[in-house]
Amino acid sequence: MSALLSPEGLEQRLRDVGAQRYHDKHPFHVRLHAGGCTRGEVQAWALNRYTYQAHIPVKDAALIARTGSSDLRRAWRQRLVDHDGAEAGEGGVERWLRLCESLGLERADVLAFRGVLPATRFAVDAYVNFVRERSLLEAVASSLTELFSPTIIRNRVAGMLANYDFVSPESLAYFSARPEQARRDVEVALAYVTANARTPAEQEAVIAALEFKCDMLWAMLDALQHAYVEPGHIPPGAFVPEG
Amino acid sequence: MSALLSPEGLEQRLRDVGAQRYHDKHPFHVRLHAGGCTRGEVQAWALNRYTYQAHIPVKDAALIARTGSSDLRRAWRQRLVDHDGAEAGEGGVERWLRLCESLGLERADVLAFRGVLPATRFAVDAYVNFVRERSLLEAVASSLTELFSPTIIRNRVAGMLANYDFVSPESLAYFSARPEQARRDVEVALAYVTANARTPAEQEAVIAALEFKCDMLWAMLDALQHAYVEPGHIPPGAFVPEG
Repeated sequence: MSALLSPEGLEQRLRDVGAQRYHDKHPFHVRLHAGGCTRGEVQAWALNRYTYQAHIPVKDAALIARTGSSDLRRAWRQRLVDHDGAEAGEGGVERWLRLCESLGLERADVLAFRGVLPATRFAVDAYVNFVRERSLLEAVASSLTELFSPTIIRNRVAGMLANYDFVSPESLAYFSARPEQARRDVEVALAYVTANARTPAEQEAVIAALEFKCDMLWAMLDALQHAYVEPGHIPPGAFVPEG
Repeated sequence: MSALLSPEGLEQRLRDVGAQRYHDKHPFHVRLHAGGCTRGEVQAWALNRYTYQAHIPVKDAALIARTGSSDLRRAWRQRLVDHDGAEAGEGGVERWLRLCESLGLERADVLAFRGVLPATRFAVDAYVNFVRERSLLEAVASSLTELFSPTIIRNRVAGMLANYDFVSPESLAYFSARPEQARRDVEVALAYVTANARTPAEQEAVIAALEFKCDMLWAMLDALQHAYVEPGHIPPGAFVPEG
């Protein structure tokens, strides 16, 4: 059995997980940010990733529904506001839809998840079910990939604007709000897990939850890479880029 | 809205799904059966597929738990017997474990799902959850890939024995029992769906359930192909073949 880590020691172990497994190391992201993707590949990325974006407020609501703490519910509620907006036409889900539209996808197709890879759906459902079914501590911990997201977003925005003439600053509006939101969110989640993981077993569960989340993001990019970067591997029924 | 199909018409639509989407058309199976796989690739296939095998009686028990019909429970119970055996050391799950051992994998690693691709786990969990959460009619219909399994099993056994010196008839014992079991199982399931899908919408749901199941099997092979056939794509934490 491992020893109990200090809060700083636990945070360092979590950062190590990111250094080893976060999807900024995935070849598809390297390709996406460096300008190596075709327009069809960027479309497939945005379309599949919409499945993830659309389920973030679902998993956040599932988490809120599991806690008896007004404090945690109130803090976590901000995530619903960020993703669903104060009213129709606002929020992160809508901004991701506009990114898809700016890339030439039909809004109705994206909303209906038409052509999304089955592997994407399975990975996103695994995440929602993880938050519903595991301990509340693990559910909170699985959000901690936001420790690493400000860097990937900065690289993504710079890389995509420099490398793709079909991408505009307006189309990337989703990303301009996210780093500040992620910094605030991660503060809440990190304080929660350091306060509530009080045994070595609970700390290991927190680390494993973050590994699970990294695996899930990685699997989404594996599926994209296999289907769209390597020719001839688009599974039956999935989105086929033009041309 | 589509018209109500006759029982024969519905069965034909289901067979059409198999002709288009069943995983015997996947390049990994073509490679596996034709002798193109390395020993490491066959190990990875057996290890990942064990996750599926081990969860078949779990999804069958979930289905049994959902019906008030003694007749359906009794007929479906035979599947538990087939996979878990009459006593320890028997049944399909145990035979698959022995296949893994005969390929040089450690029994304890396989039992613990050590090194299994996250995408495999997500696909298998999606199947178990489908059977738990969708209508009983859809749950039954999702088993109908057994309409197509006798052919793929015959090709697999012949191809693997002819092409791999590390595969023996004993190691493939799992497959010798399956075609007859599948024929009996499919008779029950097909009679159930043709009797219980009484509206066009229910018939469409049955067809969609079989498509889902085909997609899930296909996604498992996509993940194997991406990780093990195309070099350099094994995700963090997954099984790495020797050499």
